[in-house]
Amino acid sequence: MAAIITLLTDFGQRDSYVAEMKGVLLCALPTAQIVDITHGIPRGNVFAAQYVLGRTWQRFPNGTVHLVVVDPGVGSERRAIAALNGEHRFIGPDNGVLTPVLAAATVFELPVSANAAPTFHGRDVFAPMAAILAAGTPLERAGREIRDPVLRPLPAARQDGTDLVGVVIYVDGFGTLVTNLDAKAAAWAAKAARAVKGGKAKKSADRPAVAERETVVAVAGRVAPLMRTFTDVASGELVAFVGSGGTIEIAVRNGSAAEVLGVRDGAEARVRS
Amino acid sequence: MAAIITLLTDFGQRDSYVAEMKGVLLCALPTAQIVDITHGIPRGNVFAAQYVLGRTWQRFPNGTVHLVVVDPGVGSERRAIAALNGEHRFIGPDNGVLTPVLAAATVFELPVSANAAPTFHGRDVFAPMAAILAAGTPLERAGREIRDPVLRPLPAARQDGTDLVGVVIYVDGFGTLVTNLDAKAAAWAAKAARAVKGGKAKKSADRPAVAERETVVAVAGRVAPLMRTFTDVASGELVAFVGSGGTIEIAVRNGSAAEVLGVRDGAEARVRS
Amino acid sequence: MAAIITLLTDFGQRDSYVAEMKGVLLCALPTAQIVDITHGIPRGNVFAAQYVLGRTWQRFPNGTVHLVVVDPGVGSERRAIAALNGEHRFIGPDNGVLTPVLAAATVFELPVSANAAPTFHGRDVFAPMAAILAAGTPLERAGREIRDPVLRPLPAARQDGTDLVGVVIYVDGFGTLVTNLDAKAAAWAAKAARAVKGGKAKKSADRPAVAERETVVAVAGRVAPLMRTFTDVASGELVAFVGSGGTIEIAVRNGSAAEVLGVRDGAEARVRS
Repeated sequence: MAAIITLLTDFGQRDSYVAEMKGVLLCALPTAQIVDITHGIPRGNVFAAQYVLGRTWQRFPNGTVHLVVVDPGVGSERRAIAALNGEHRFIGPDNGVLTPVLAAATVFELPVSANAAPTFHGRDVFAPMAAILAAGTPLERAGREIRDPVLRPLPAARQDGTDLVGVVIYVDGFGTLVTNLDAKAAAWAAKAARAVKGGKAKKSADRPAVAERETVVAVAGRVAPLMRTFTDVASGELVAFVGSGGTIEIAVRNGSAAEVLGVRDGAEARVRS
Repeated sequence: MAAIITLLTDFGQRDSYVAEMKGVLLCALPTAQIVDITHGIPRGNVFAAQYVLGRTWQRFPNGTVHLVVVDPGVGSERRAIAALNGEHRFIGPDNGVLTPVLAAATVFELPVSANAAPTFHGRDVFAPMAAILAAGTPLERAGREIRDPVLRPLPAARQDGTDLVGVVIYVDGFGTLVTNLDAKAAAWAAKAARAVKGGKAKKSADRPAVAERETVVAVAGRVAPLMRTFTDVASGELVAFVGSGGTIEIAVRNGSAAEVLGVRDGAEARVRS
Repeated sequence: MAAIITLLTDFGQRDSYVAEMKGVLLCALPTAQIVDITHGIPRGNVFAAQYVLGRTWQRFPNGTVHLVVVDPGVGSERRAIAALNGEHRFIGPDNGVLTPVLAAATVFELPVSANAAPTFHGRDVFAPMAAILAAGTPLERAGREIRDPVLRPLPAARQDGTDLVGVVIYVDGFGTLVTNLDAKAAAWAAKAARAVKGGKAKKSADRPAVAERETVVAVAGRVAPLMRTFTDVASGELVAFVGSGGTIEIAVRNGSAAEVLGVRDGAEARVRS
């Protein structure tokens, strides 16, 4: 059975860097199934890499080795680590990029050879280790267990009155804004808001019932109605929905919400009901 | 023998979407040979996807499963379909994107699970079905045969006097303009034009014979001589030739015809002899 | 054991061209391990392709077939060639793009079928030949040995007094400037310069010893200190180091040296000690 190895980097696809890593992998495992997750993470953006890793790794079979190299501190004192989470293995720098999988994982510090190019541990440290693990060496033999890996969790949503307040954590290639607003939390916030407004509505019967039941997501001074999907609004209109990664996204149908709203990751997003 | 599965989308390569589809495929078929046709179709451009599909699929071995996801109507009422053409199988939305292969195909409507993310049928509907077909399940068992798939044929060229008139259907990464002007139709038009002019020439012997025999392609008010290939003109010059997809293309040698002419897909192209 | 075939082109990834080549390869070798080196070589840039090829090919296992198609003269009289260097095989146009591997290679001219599309030898000439070689046919049977392949070596560094003078031969996706200044030559130049200055220093004891020992790389009127790696300077600062390809590179930590310095390939780079 062929080993499966995934690659997630900010190296881009113009240069030879990804291919050099693949060459190293194939020298050890010529029949490996190597899958590019993406090489288009914005340079050094550890949060974007976490988001992509978090929604992707469980789509792959047990036994997969995931190589994550978004590593602005390469060649410095930062450690190289590997982690075992269930039957998935992860390799990368100890800079928080593996945070989404570390909570439930056993973590090991990897040796860094003095011969490794200080600017390219992807090729000289991480890829050789990935080949060793994919070939069947147990992680315990690859390094020394540690208890203090660096964690840089994505920001959490918070409650503000009956609003649920979060941030845009990722902007995808369609210009859709992905938030950290979990679908369940949003549903709970909406229900709570309706209960409060339900009380108010008894006193003020002239307010339209439909508007009161509507949940919207506010970003950059605009509001998007929370719908099932983007085809529920007309072309060019703003819309919010629970995205394929499980959190609320804001999009423009047949357009780019990032352009229309002029926002990027870090912008506040607020669920109102 | 490994299953071959091709992927043709407008998802781009920055995000996790393509990799999530690959993870689904590899869970079912860990040794599948997965080939990216492109993920760079302009967002929602069903015609560009058709052009790329039309010139690519027959390059692959019999038995290949082709997954085509250019799907601006995902999550709406549009159907999901699969088609069998010879020994090639195709899966995609019923929005016309599979038109180039449907004429000679048997077509089936696929079930769409209520659990599928409404914004990502590529991962939750099409990829699982591709894995099922690639593993050997006959198409008849995958869905219900239908007779009315949506067809959106690329525009056809037309005769205008002795001119053959078509449009630019695709602009490639080199800035070369690909037309729908078939090489054979163009040759026929040129022959007809020469016959007509041959008659005229008898009356007006002072017109230069060479110019009369020359065939040109007119786009955006400029004319490109029809040659064998772009190295038949000097660097920086406009040239037309029968491209590697079988239709007439307009290029600038060592440059971009799209930039020089300021045109994009949809522009008229006219063969004159 | 699966054949490994690498692809290095300037075709980009938007169009069907790379996939058409892969289809041809898979018709002959359905289980081939096909690796994209890059398809992002600047259009027609034979030097950039050489640099990428030169630092990549030896990372792959013996037996690999390397397909290199940066071919602005496709369809003209330029020859198609294949080369054997150790146990690696190379296929491409005879325009100098294979220079880094030709010195130690046996070179063969390949036949070009009259049916090959004049604009797409990658699909119709090179890929079919790659499949034949990867399937085990000896190179001697694929073509006629030649002694005069086109060579276009990358420029060499030169000594100017105690300076070592070279050029930027490649700009990577991070904006890092890769020079042709070999690490060993630079070390030698620095040692020679120190010897000369050491003599001067005896006469002029008031000059600071540290500054005298420092080696810098001058580009575009700015100087970058030669360090071990970019994390040895503060964020935003210029730095030079021996890169992962073995030559001196100039970078801006967490930034783009190409943007900060406003230079591109061809710019002079000078090592001073």
